[in-house]
Amino acid sequence: MTVEVWTDINCPFCYVGEGRLEQALEAFPHREDVEVVYRSFELNPEAPKDVTRPVVEAVAEKYGATVEQIEANEDRIGAMAGELGLGYRTRGRDSGNSFDLHRLTHYAKEQGKQRELFNRLYKANFAEERSVFADQEFVVDAAAEVGLDPAEVRKVLDDPTSYAAEVRADEREATELGARGVPFFVLDRKYGISGAQPTEVFSQALNQAWSERPRRSLITVEGAEGADACGPEGC
Amino acid sequence: MTVEVWTDINCPFCYVGEGRLEQALEAFPHREDVEVVYRSFELNPEAPKDVTRPVVEAVAEKYGATVEQIEANEDRIGAMAGELGLGYRTRGRDSGNSFDLHRLTHYAKEQGKQRELFNRLYKANFAEERSVFADQEFVVDAAAEVGLDPAEVRKVLDDPTSYAAEVRADEREATELGARGVPFFVLDRKYGISGAQPTEVFSQALNQAWSERPRRSLITVEGAEGADACGPEGC
Repeated sequence: MTVEVWTDINCPFCYVGEGRLEQALEAFPHREDVEVVYRSFELNPEAPKDVTRPVVEAVAEKYGATVEQIEANEDRIGAMAGELGLGYRTRGRDSGNSFDLHRLTHYAKEQGKQRELFNRLYKANFAEERSVFADQEFVVDAAAEVGLDPAEVRKVLDDPTSYAAEVRADEREATELGARGVPFFVLDRKYGISGAQPTEVFSQALNQAWSERPRRSLITVEGAEGADACGPEGC
Repeated sequence: MTVEVWTDINCPFCYVGEGRLEQALEAFPHREDVEVVYRSFELNPEAPKDVTRPVVEAVAEKYGATVEQIEANEDRIGAMAGELGLGYRTRGRDSGNSFDLHRLTHYAKEQGKQRELFNRLYKANFAEERSVFADQEFVVDAAAEVGLDPAEVRKVLDDPTSYAAEVRADEREATELGARGVPFFVLDRKYGISGAQPTEVFSQALNQAWSERPRRSLITVEGAEGADACGPEGC
């Protein structure tokens, strides 16, 4: 069974939602038959490259909210993360353009390290005092920590065309599948889950999709009589 | 909807079975939404390359039948082909190793000419006084007739590794899907049809598979309340 997760490094509810998916997967009896694939979705595609802004300030300005309102929301997200045992710093987090990071996650996917890289970048962005959007050397080190080759990582980050088509393809598919935000989870291309739903919702959906997973064997269609065919025993 | 056809140029019931599929498709109201894909299956993988044998003699020997029995079978196949308006010569047809021809059909597939090439080779093998198994110049001409580049065709035929992996992958899949002979038809990887079934069987299966074809839109899974997400309007 395949679970696709459209996500952005900028998205705190992706961090929380994936934590809940992970909880559901840990309790799922067919965990080893589930492949999780990450797909790209940019929340701030218009943000300038290599510039970061404090989240609280940027969000308050963008939506005309007060700093107090945004801080209260951050506190709420921090509590949700805390329930999952995930670190979350409620003040001082940055936002920025995530296109280059998404390109890098597609390189990591080819190397079998996509999940590891996402988790490392999430941790840096949400739980550590690190900015991942404008500090290439930190990103190179973080990628190396999960086993990626620093020279190859630099090559990908420095070439804006590298894996760009893969990011764009993911974003087109998100639109085609009806995603209007992230996190957006798709099970076996049949069931869609929007947002950081409670863990039980993921558990129920996993069970439902599992019971309806595509059959490995075909349904045989037959006429009234056996039909003529050729095989090892002749025609 | 996708219809996959495992077939071999050596297989007269493939020729007849595909003619019946074609009849069913002509009457099928969603014909333009059906993609037919040919897949490789060798009936005589042990046959030496570039050697042909008269079918009647080879089959009689292989199965310990009399020439009269095989000729009667050929007459019966000829009548089945005739009902579809397909030419069929009941005497003098050759058999041989079809591996190189299968490789070529995979090249033709890349060029959007797979169906045309199969039909041309079938016609040559079953309806014309031509051998397709050991006459490379004829195969090059036949491929050129359907729009393939003769120099490229020669290159594929001369390199035994060219498209060999594609042929082997098709054959592995046939085994995995439970095919023990050809023709073997698979509709949307859900329904399997073995042999040259009557046209009505194909029509019924097309209608059944169409009514159950995969949905383009996802089924939305929701919890009791809306879930937190980030989108263009914020988090």
